[in-house]
Amino acid sequence: MTGTNKNELTNLPSDETQPIIVLVNPQMGENIGATARAMLNCGLCHLRIVNPRDGWPNERANAMSSGALDLMPPVQVFETLGDAIADCHTIYATTARPRDLVKPVLTPRFAAQDISELIDNKQKIAILFGAERAGLTNDEVAFAHKIISIPLNPGFSSLNLGQSVLLVAYEWSQRVFSAPEEHLPTGKSQPATAAEFNNFFNRLDQELIASRFYRVDEMKDIISRNIKSLFQRTNLTDQEINTLHGILTSLTTHRQKQD
Amino acid sequence: MTGTNKNELTNLPSDETQPIIVLVNPQMGENIGATARAMLNCGLCHLRIVNPRDGWPNERANAMSSGALDLMPPVQVFETLGDAIADCHTIYATTARPRDLVKPVLTPRFAAQDISELIDNKQKIAILFGAERAGLTNDEVAFAHKIISIPLNPGFSSLNLGQSVLLVAYEWSQRVFSAPEEHLPTGKSQPATAAEFNNFFNRLDQELIASRFYRVDEMKDIISRNIKSLFQRTNLTDQEINTLHGILTSLTTHRQKQD
Repeated sequence: MTGTNKNELTNLPSDETQPIIVLVNPQMGENIGATARAMLNCGLCHLRIVNPRDGWPNERANAMSSGALDLMPPVQVFETLGDAIADCHTIYATTARPRDLVKPVLTPRFAAQDISELIDNKQKIAILFGAERAGLTNDEVAFAHKIISIPLNPGFSSLNLGQSVLLVAYEWSQRVFSAPEEHLPTGKSQPATAAEFNNFFNRLDQELIASRFYRVDEMKDIISRNIKSLFQRTNLTDQEINTLHGILTSLTTHRQKQD
Repeated sequence: MTGTNKNELTNLPSDETQPIIVLVNPQMGENIGATARAMLNCGLCHLRIVNPRDGWPNERANAMSSGALDLMPPVQVFETLGDAIADCHTIYATTARPRDLVKPVLTPRFAAQDISELIDNKQKIAILFGAERAGLTNDEVAFAHKIISIPLNPGFSSLNLGQSVLLVAYEWSQRVFSAPEEHLPTGKSQPATAAEFNNFFNRLDQELIASRFYRVDEMKDIISRNIKSLFQRTNLTDQEINTLHGILTSLTTHRQKQD
């Protein structure tokens, strides 16, 4: 059953702007499915598998992929790791434990930058992930130019396969799906103008004077400024200013009726 | 069964240098277990759950946690979200879809920095994750000061609960478990000195002259420099220099026998 998709390689629309994920000797279909889902979450769609224990296609992989396998180009299956990476230029191996091999070790974040630069130089990139129990063998790591190692809690660093793929793919994705570090979406509202804000605050201040909130004249200015800061800090929208006017009307009307 | 650990809160050794993860109305024990594993991978150990559908403790959660739940302080169970966050100062809500609530939206990376700064200011922080099917309700999000939204493939952005926790916790962890962006571990070997390198290269160069490798005299210097660059680029270790000397000896001895 392995090798069935092998010849489809050259027929695929090849998206050379992203790295190829290669699972080497994966055991459980569930983990292949979780890998596909994590990849597509992060915008990656080229998955190759070497010698999957339970063959391919795999129903459990389909179920766990939450539809990702249907949306991605067909998974390519190879009998050997050498075949799977034959057309790639730079190979990264993901490993959790240190190896007795002298290779550059990169964080996933730096690897994402490194891969991005190589792809800009027209390279085709493969990232290898090993079998569930022990990861890549040293012979498999020897195929790679560089190692990616995820810095995690040294006392509890064992990730499952899908999670490892997720973290490496996520770092890649953060170069692609950018978002502002922080923003304040206001929906249909607009940020309030200074005039809208000051109209509200001055009205509040007048109501507080009228209701004898400022008991000590000497403190009035300080307290008033602190209250102004409190409302300024919230970056009010025009809709919220209207709501605050309504609150003020409601509370003062109620108070006046009580008087 | 909910609420049983509630009173243990004040008895716990409180590690106030990390945020608290709060699962709100989680359904499947497996996801609570995966959450615990992802948290401990990233060095987080304070997990609170609000109204878990299948009660607590949960055997499936234990199995999926790969031992994390045994290593962490006991999970704290609360009946309401308000109870779960009562002692926290700043609350973050994780959401995948935009809400009609005007709150700052942060990337996980910026949130990790933001949380770190607040913790430095002695704040206790909670990060809320919603139930599996639809995430946090708007009423639950309303408890939060800020929203964390993970920028992913907009065409396929649905993460499972454990994966969402993993990515947010991972960003936190990268501020704690730092590693050099790139390093070249050499094990018991040492990087070769310039003298070791040049001794090897000069010997190689002499052997290439002797074996008439440089056929065109005018090109000799250029070709020699290019070969030197090739070996320089690999950042050889002392052990590797020894190996290359051995290779050279072996190849030249063999050649001499053939002569």
